[in-house]
Amino acid sequence: MADLAQVIFMPSGKRGRFAVGTPVLSAARQLGVDLDSVCGGRGICSRCQVTPGSGHFAKLGLTVGPGALSPWNAVEERYRQKRGLAPGRRLGCQARIEADVVIDVPPESQLHRQVVRKQATARAMVMDPAVRLFLVAVAEPDMHAPSGDLERLLLALKETWDISGLSVDLAILSRLQPVLRQGNWQVTVAVHDDGSAAPRILDIWPGFHEGPLYGLAIDLGSTTIAAHLCDLRDGAVRASGGVMNPQIRFGEDLMSRVSYAMMNPGGAAEMTAAVRDGLDTLVAGLVAEAGIAARDVVEAVLVCNPVMHHLLLGIDPVELGQAPFALATSGALRLAAAELGLRSVNPGARLHVLPCIAGHVGADAAAVALSEAPEASPDLVLVVDVGTNAEILLGSRTHGVLACSSPTGPAFEGAQISSGQRAAPGAIEAVRIDPQTGEPRFRVIGCDLWSDEPGFAAATAATGVTGICGSGIIEAVAEMRMAGLLDASGRIGSAAATGSPRCEAEGRTHAYLLHDASAGGGPRITVTQNDIRAIQLAKSALYAGARLLMDRLGVDRVDRVVLAGAFGAHISPLHAMVLGMIPDAPLDRVTSAGNAAGTGARMALCSRAARAEVAAMVTRIVKIETAVEPAFQAHFVAANALPHASDPFPELARAVTLPAPDFGAAAQSGRRRRRGG
Amino acid sequence: MADLAQVIFMPSGKRGRFAVGTPVLSAARQLGVDLDSVCGGRGICSRCQVTPGSGHFAKLGLTVGPGALSPWNAVEERYRQKRGLAPGRRLGCQARIEADVVIDVPPESQLHRQVVRKQATARAMVMDPAVRLFLVAVAEPDMHAPSGDLERLLLALKETWDISGLSVDLAILSRLQPVLRQGNWQVTVAVHDDGSAAPRILDIWPGFHEGPLYGLAIDLGSTTIAAHLCDLRDGAVRASGGVMNPQIRFGEDLMSRVSYAMMNPGGAAEMTAAVRDGLDTLVAGLVAEAGIAARDVVEAVLVCNPVMHHLLLGIDPVELGQAPFALATSGALRLAAAELGLRSVNPGARLHVLPCIAGHVGADAAAVALSEAPEASPDLVLVVDVGTNAEILLGSRTHGVLACSSPTGPAFEGAQISSGQRAAPGAIEAVRIDPQTGEPRFRVIGCDLWSDEPGFAAATAATGVTGICGSGIIEAVAEMRMAGLLDASGRIGSAAATGSPRCEAEGRTHAYLLHDASAGGGPRITVTQNDIRAIQLAKSALYAGARLLMDRLGVDRVDRVVLAGAFGAHISPLHAMVLGMIPDAPLDRVTSAGNAAGTGARMALCSRAARAEVAAMVTRIVKIETAVEPAFQAHFVAANALPHASDPFPELARAVTLPAPDFGAAAQSGRRRRRGG
Repeated sequence: MADLAQVIFMPSGKRGRFAVGTPVLSAARQLGVDLDSVCGGRGICSRCQVTPGSGHFAKLGLTVGPGALSPWNAVEERYRQKRGLAPGRRLGCQARIEADVVIDVPPESQLHRQVVRKQATARAMVMDPAVRLFLVAVAEPDMHAPSGDLERLLLALKETWDISGLSVDLAILSRLQPVLRQGNWQVTVAVHDDGSAAPRILDIWPGFHEGPLYGLAIDLGSTTIAAHLCDLRDGAVRASGGVMNPQIRFGEDLMSRVSYAMMNPGGAAEMTAAVRDGLDTLVAGLVAEAGIAARDVVEAVLVCNPVMHHLLLGIDPVELGQAPFALATSGALRLAAAELGLRSVNPGARLHVLPCIAGHVGADAAAVALSEAPEASPDLVLVVDVGTNAEILLGSRTHGVLACSSPTGPAFEGAQISSGQRAAPGAIEAVRIDPQTGEPRFRVIGCDLWSDEPGFAAATAATGVTGICGSGIIEAVAEMRMAGLLDASGRIGSAAATGSPRCEAEGRTHAYLLHDASAGGGPRITVTQNDIRAIQLAKSALYAGARLLMDRLGVDRVDRVVLAGAFGAHISPLHAMVLGMIPDAPLDRVTSAGNAAGTGARMALCSRAARAEVAAMVTRIVKIETAVEPAFQAHFVAANALPHASDPFPELARAVTLPAPDFGAAAQSGRRRRRGG
Repeated sequence: MADLAQVIFMPSGKRGRFAVGTPVLSAARQLGVDLDSVCGGRGICSRCQVTPGSGHFAKLGLTVGPGALSPWNAVEERYRQKRGLAPGRRLGCQARIEADVVIDVPPESQLHRQVVRKQATARAMVMDPAVRLFLVAVAEPDMHAPSGDLERLLLALKETWDISGLSVDLAILSRLQPVLRQGNWQVTVAVHDDGSAAPRILDIWPGFHEGPLYGLAIDLGSTTIAAHLCDLRDGAVRASGGVMNPQIRFGEDLMSRVSYAMMNPGGAAEMTAAVRDGLDTLVAGLVAEAGIAARDVVEAVLVCNPVMHHLLLGIDPVELGQAPFALATSGALRLAAAELGLRSVNPGARLHVLPCIAGHVGADAAAVALSEAPEASPDLVLVVDVGTNAEILLGSRTHGVLACSSPTGPAFEGAQISSGQRAAPGAIEAVRIDPQTGEPRFRVIGCDLWSDEPGFAAATAATGVTGICGSGIIEAVAEMRMAGLLDASGRIGSAAATGSPRCEAEGRTHAYLLHDASAGGGPRITVTQNDIRAIQLAKSALYAGARLLMDRLGVDRVDRVVLAGAFGAHISPLHAMVLGMIPDAPLDRVTSAGNAAGTGARMALCSRAARAEVAAMVTRIVKIETAVEPAFQAHFVAANALPHASDPFPELARAVTLPAPDFGAAAQSGRRRRRGG
């Protein structure tokens, strides 16, 4: 019997005894230690780097002497000279065990390495992507024992990597023979295995293809399509970008697009073509920006709301426009990216669409649930994803999670507002009103100065002040309320409201003059009574949805609030609360999660376990349909009023009577914010 | 506890006790009795018809009284009036068990019904196609427990039919919602499940879709593409047809096409497009001829030789042109028919390509092995599929099976013959030579008269006598040998050969004048020395391949010979043996199997078990590569001679000295055949 040596792997602590001469990589595999390798032990990929320890390890009860591993060999030396190898590092496939040894597997050699995401909540993420590279040596053909090149490749993958049941597309099969010969019977195979259906060979390269491979995390919104191009080794974002959803020309909000599909034969197909085209354009841009080969982009994870989901997939969304709001499919979808017209990716690239929660609560909300994990929250958290439609999640570890969507309409995005416009340079994005004088000051996108600071006019000369965007109108209305220019019912110029020369009569109602550039031929930007009504309707819908979920849990208040959505990052929590968009909560416990749906998509892109998690989670989430809940209507009507410090909103009262808090996550629009009063 | 009654199903004899009131269909399912149903017991499809017995069944120990089943009900009466129901028949889903009963399941109600094929060997075939129809009632959407329409359909298929793990294409998903509503939540689903990968939903119809569904059995030859359109209920052929392989313009034989691919950039792709186009044209014609809806054609099984296999799939066949003759893939392929450009079928139709045996022995040979089953033969059988390439199988139940291919070239098909032409009206297809006078007579395609019969000239006036086709040249050479006009080495006009005025000098060799129409401006049809050499080379290759396999088994003779291939049907066994194409065997044990490859394709189309059988069989078949076997060369050289009654071919000697046998399967070209001497 061969001599045995004890081997302990750190940080896992896994240990075993192996015959002297066993390569470290082999020992790691036998013990199930998470040590990466693409080349399968050929000294090519260097993914299996380890650091052997030496000295006495008291806790492990092991003393490691010199010569515990075989001497530095020629393969390691060649690798060090060519590509570099840090001092103390060995290649696990080259170094052999000679005596008892403790071996450290550094994080970058772990296949399922943990990555701490900086964005959003700083939860650790385990890299476990669906596509991996495998180098194999394939047996050459033998005419006396004939078998296909494919069959020998599959056998090699089985024997070297224990992968079986692979399917292969014709496109791969037609390239197989020259690639095998070009690689002199060594090839790198990209295998897609998302743990659900049959794994498949996604691509094949002659010899060793190091990668890295990339994936796309796509958040397909009604207004904007956003995507991150991520490195599938560590989840790092290599490029991010967004384009307007080209469907906007068919209708601003989802229901207008459903109507367009219902009223126009071929309308759904027209919108499908438009959104696929937009997505393709966005992806092509990201790939070009990152300067990578399209072929290295091998997978995409996509989230969106149900109407976008159906329109992207080529399903007429008509059923989503009427009760009972039946989805064609609610489960996760596994498609070829090419089916949806994505061209700037690997021809075999796959697309995973996260599951929907319900007819009005889509895969984007599922991604938010994955990212913000209300199910795991120790305290009761309200997660609000504000967009043209608001998705609302409420729950905790003990309560479970409830979800609904609320038809806020596009007012929060600056649409249907008299001076409203999209967030673009020149748009008013922040407003402060002096409660003593009723005089406003504001900031526009593209300029860091407030309008009452020196140099503002010069700095905005190029763009001018063109209108007011979503965050601007919210702040304007909230500031008007705090300055007393609005009464609780939202009326300007009523007996209960403070007057101001800026509150002008306009027909039978009043409007508040925010900015007048008419002397120079520019616009007169006002907040009209209709604008305030539109914001009141939107915020009432949002608030009523949240209240409905709170009713279901039998709670009167929540412990914390997370504002999600690209838009969420720009809303000041204080103003949101003044408006009554969200229920009363300690202001320092109202945070922004940024584009949480996009973050959830990234998590699912990087980890198959996250996909399984979200699939299980959506079945557990309790869905509430706001459209048919009488309580929703009651809450909606009751929420019309604008709360104030004098109302039963104790946290709000505390906030507005204290010095301005630092809004943390809302810093992007508020980083030079000072209290107006 | 409910009263129990005993139920015995015939012919299976399966029995059990069931609660009074149990529907017969439910009892059958619980016992695993093979009773068909598409509608799942809704009294719609009538597939579950049964015949209850009555009286005393001594062997079964059961007496069946009146009232053993529930009375004839309204559903049955409606069905009888609308569609007819034979006397004594009941619908198994409607009739309920009231007391002990014996129930006969007629063959047409059995799902896996046995069908005796008239063609080829009269083996029974079990119908077990990959695509079946299932009627299901789907739960309507509930907004309070939201789930997708697809998810509810899948649940219904699971609950009603115990089918799970189904995949669904986007094309089906996009049609799902209107179809479900149109069918008022009842739909018929075509499920494709070939037992290998994930089953899939292939199509969906509102309400009850009775079918029948159809499949295609395709034999893609180098020269001809042939297909059968079959009813998937019973395997019946509804239409058959063939077209020339449009690749012929790139080369007559396989190696010329491989050369074309090697010499011309894009040549392989050109040939791929040509053959796909030809296949699509053929299928469109068959579907039109049968007068069925293309949508009801749901599957195809295809067989072909390796070069055609690669060219059809879009794989460059260059590796098949040189040792070691590596196939890109040898296993069975499961594709979408649309991937190969088939348009006149269901858009979701599947295509199954049978596995290849080796680089020179294709899926067509595998299909022949399935159809002719040498592995199950009690005696040693040689199966020869004669075409441009010959595939040869040798084996028995005790010997196992060996396979090789032999490069016979196109001489057997009339190519490379001085007066050779394709089998078409006007071509000489049968020849007899009087051994006394050396005078020939012949028959041409399109006319039943021999050339020496009255009226021949008039009957052939339209076409004339234009040339000589494959079977004609074989008979001509064999008859020349039998008449002594050739010596054993194949020479005309040698000292060892009988002279004749028809043996004309032609340069340094001689030619035999078969027909002279030059006086009327027609051709002079001769058999030249070069023609004889070409036939000798072809037959030597064929014979050498067979001998090589016999050597491997260590046998000197075979018990029987099966000539397969469309061409096999037209070769007279006697002439084949005189030529030495096949080893000596009792003439009455030389039979034609017709298009055995096509038959094998039909078997695989009708039965998933047959696909599994052929996949297992190809791994067991021992492959012999003729190209590198020195023994093949030796046999090839030795086989050059033309045997005769005086040679050590005892069976041949018996045949040529006896009155002409009735050639049975070779009757098509020989049905008016009389011995020439």
